[in-house]
Amino acid sequence: MIILGIDPGLAIVGWGVVECSRGRFRTLGYGAIRTPAGTRTEERLLLIYKELSAIIAHFHPDEMAVEELFFTNNITTGIRVAEARGIVLLCGEQNKLPIAEYTPPQVKQAVVGYGKAEKKQVITMVTSILRLAEPPKPDDTADALAIAICHGHCGGSRLAPYFNK
Amino acid sequence: MIILGIDPGLAIVGWGVVECSRGRFRTLGYGAIRTPAGTRTEERLLLIYKELSAIIAHFHPDEMAVEELFFTNNITTGIRVAEARGIVLLCGEQNKLPIAEYTPPQVKQAVVGYGKAEKKQVITMVTSILRLAEPPKPDDTADALAIAICHGHCGGSRLAPYFNK
Repeated sequence: MIILGIDPGLAIVGWGVVECSRGRFRTLGYGAIRTPAGTRTEERLLLIYKELSAIIAHFHPDEMAVEELFFTNNITTGIRVAEARGIVLLCGEQNKLPIAEYTPPQVKQAVVGYGKAEKKQVITMVTSILRLAEPPKPDDTADALAIAICHGHCGGSRLAPYFNK
Repeated sequence: MIILGIDPGLAIVGWGVVECSRGRFRTLGYGAIRTPAGTRTEERLLLIYKELSAIIAHFHPDEMAVEELFFTNNITTGIRVAEARGIVLLCGEQNKLPIAEYTPPQVKQAVVGYGKAEKKQVITMVTSILRLAEPPKPDDTADALAIAICHGHCGGSRLAPYFNK
């Protein structure tokens, strides 16, 4: 099963494609969609839409896993992240991908084995699990790979809980 | 100038098309996109995307005006509204429409002449300004028409402030 993990945002959308087979993981590609600061929100959203659609067309994932949003800090920023997240969900649905959503503690639990693990530990585990030469950059990309691994650990859509309300 | 006003939401997206010419307003069409409760969020977002794209293709508006989000009540609901709002902005940008955003007090000020006007007053004024036989239903549709009128009052994109950050 090929899983596309996404860490959504307006400035940076982290993405990672992970193939999960018999409990083994390998990555087929990863990166970050970056949208220029200072451009209009709708321009940035369209850029995310186009690039993510191209990534899906290139890697043909079977399923998508997306980080769930928490608004703990800045609500205005949170609104813009949620708008970008809507675009991510739209791209998944347009391409008929089953979509699972995971909270950060669920991802940490699945990847590190501890729901309150630090970001550094997550990155170290992702690098190790995928046998990468060096840690993926930026952190959003490492997070996206972690989300994909989490979904693989959960058995994909056959077992994963769906959090969409 | 033909203005498409939008009151975004996940369950209901109110829309209204208003032609503004020499300070006179008339509506070319209005309604609400409704998405079924109990269906997956991404299905609802795709439905909004398809229906709004069809509305734009039908009415060929020159500009779009969208209500700005405030999170005062339920943050979880707010996230879903923001995701839907992202889809609205994407549709506008894909169709190369200039997009203006207005806060509820700005809309009330423009339509009723008082920024703290009650919803009922806004609906009465919209009905009167557009010479409608009866008040538009649901309220989301009346709000969308009010947003379009507000944008027309502001002189369209030539004068309207852009609130995108």
